[in-house]
Amino acid sequence: MRRTCCRVRRAQALIGVVVGEFELIRRYFVRPEGGRSAAAPTPPPETAVRLGIGDDCALLAPRAGFELAISTDMLVAGRHFLVDTGADALGWKSLAVNLSDLAAMGAQPLAFTLALALPEANPDWLEGFSRGLFECADRHGCTLIGGDTTRGPLNICITVLGEVPVQGGIRRDGARPGDDIWVSGNLGDAALGLRALRAAADDLTPQQRAHAVAALERPQPRVALGIALRGIATAMLDLSDGLLGDLGHMLAASGQLGAVIDVDALPLSFALRDRNRVLCLEAALAGGDDYELCFTANAAARSAVQFAAAQAGTAVSRIGFIDAGVAIRLVDGRGMPLALDHLSFRGYDHFA
Amino acid sequence: MRRTCCRVRRAQALIGVVVGEFELIRRYFVRPEGGRSAAAPTPPPETAVRLGIGDDCALLAPRAGFELAISTDMLVAGRHFLVDTGADALGWKSLAVNLSDLAAMGAQPLAFTLALALPEANPDWLEGFSRGLFECADRHGCTLIGGDTTRGPLNICITVLGEVPVQGGIRRDGARPGDDIWVSGNLGDAALGLRALRAAADDLTPQQRAHAVAALERPQPRVALGIALRGIATAMLDLSDGLLGDLGHMLAASGQLGAVIDVDALPLSFALRDRNRVLCLEAALAGGDDYELCFTANAAARSAVQFAAAQAGTAVSRIGFIDAGVAIRLVDGRGMPLALDHLSFRGYDHFA
Repeated sequence: MRRTCCRVRRAQALIGVVVGEFELIRRYFVRPEGGRSAAAPTPPPETAVRLGIGDDCALLAPRAGFELAISTDMLVAGRHFLVDTGADALGWKSLAVNLSDLAAMGAQPLAFTLALALPEANPDWLEGFSRGLFECADRHGCTLIGGDTTRGPLNICITVLGEVPVQGGIRRDGARPGDDIWVSGNLGDAALGLRALRAAADDLTPQQRAHAVAALERPQPRVALGIALRGIATAMLDLSDGLLGDLGHMLAASGQLGAVIDVDALPLSFALRDRNRVLCLEAALAGGDDYELCFTANAAARSAVQFAAAQAGTAVSRIGFIDAGVAIRLVDGRGMPLALDHLSFRGYDHFA
Repeated sequence: MRRTCCRVRRAQALIGVVVGEFELIRRYFVRPEGGRSAAAPTPPPETAVRLGIGDDCALLAPRAGFELAISTDMLVAGRHFLVDTGADALGWKSLAVNLSDLAAMGAQPLAFTLALALPEANPDWLEGFSRGLFECADRHGCTLIGGDTTRGPLNICITVLGEVPVQGGIRRDGARPGDDIWVSGNLGDAALGLRALRAAADDLTPQQRAHAVAALERPQPRVALGIALRGIATAMLDLSDGLLGDLGHMLAASGQLGAVIDVDALPLSFALRDRNRVLCLEAALAGGDDYELCFTANAAARSAVQFAAAQAGTAVSRIGFIDAGVAIRLVDGRGMPLALDHLSFRGYDHFA
């Protein structure tokens, strides 16, 4: 749909030179070879984007024995990103947060659509956005197959499509009492990066600051780890709203279970681990924007988890276990319950 | 992605009652039986939405021998619809314009995702929007499988997924010189409806006005016709930007062809046909928002086209033919070239 209510303008020609919207798409978003650069990894050979950008629909055929995993995220300026975020970082992150949803299902990325509302067609911004977007797409072999551009308050909506073996998608409702709880990478760096950009963490070294801001602006979707955990993880999701909130969703979906989390086992980077304990816990437990995977696995599968992580080149940490309770209990490394009075956090909700 | 930059709020509980965003989704967009009402047509039996709303991704499995058709449209308040458009009409239209893209490919709708940015969570608006949306979804057997809600300037982004037989999608690049050009339904009513809402067409009878406004606010995606035209239409697209602009896209995609259009054969409703000739032609040729199908077919297939149209219960009109020229030429019913000096129109472009 490309019509507006502000229509009927002076004609230049019946079939004129098509500029503006269509030229914008051609210049910044249509690429040779169906949207993938020569440097990108080759997609699974039997899979094909049968038709990409330019028609009413794209056509996609998953391989026999696979089904499609689909996810949509919408990013709004001033809510999901600071308004002065660089265009290339925003391009990267817009796709990365969607790929993180595919990773959380154990899906192999195939393709994505991009809908973009822009206040103006600024060539510098578009060039940067497009560069960051395709850098992330190429890293994960994901092809832009269609979309929509319109004028409006900045809004980026991406739908990603991936494939998983039939019955092989890793859902969030499979956690069972006794399962270990694992997370990938480090937690809390993105929250620290946001504090740094707001000049609320000015005691960081330049290296710590750069690390934290990169975690916020260039999250790494754990696609390879998600795939490696097929058949091993019993439940999985990605951490976008903060560990406690997201783990709460997993526990609710799995039948109102509880969990015990050892806060001394939470993986903290060199940038975060020297901060004061309250800041560390708030960032790691409720910081959000981590885009790490949180998953459960049977205790007998510990070496299988470690092998999958090594295969994927992504560190994982065992941070607790599922129990039959109805709450998340925080304990320290000696198993002692944590006093929580000094902590303030919960999962994020746009309308609460 | 559900995080924002405005974070860290006072905790109420570690796993509190989840309200707001998640309650909004549950109340207005999660339905029993995987998103389809009992009254909805049964989807193709072998096809399955394997997993709907609630996980990181939805899972979808097209039938063997079919591939997926995918399209995304973004609607912005004040651009794609008047800001005072009723919520239920907006819900209907948001999905209908996407289904029209599936129809234009000859695809059977299966499922859709919805991303919604809202200035506020207004229950009346949400109830109306949801009602209109699902009315359209049920009419076409299309299941809501996932999405995203966030706070922000009103923006509606829908991605639809449908299925077509492998190699059976009707693309826009298959028109050949000598092919007939056809359109479904009537043209120009939506443009007349927009004029009526702006009080610029106050000579309409109440019936004419109601017809024109309904054409604007409740377009009927020609899904059954699109499917019936598989193997018959050589090229097809839906009319969103106006016949001349959209036909221009088809001609360009098919190899810089030309076309001759008999303006006296353009199908006009009882609401439009009594207006003055300039208004009629502007509305029918460049009015936009019609969401009728425009397709080409071999002249030997005229009875097959009519049979398909009768099967689908949708009228079609033969309005011209493709030639080897490089422009669209308008002629009257006697074949005489039309003087165009008094006409002002072209296809719409958001950034031109």
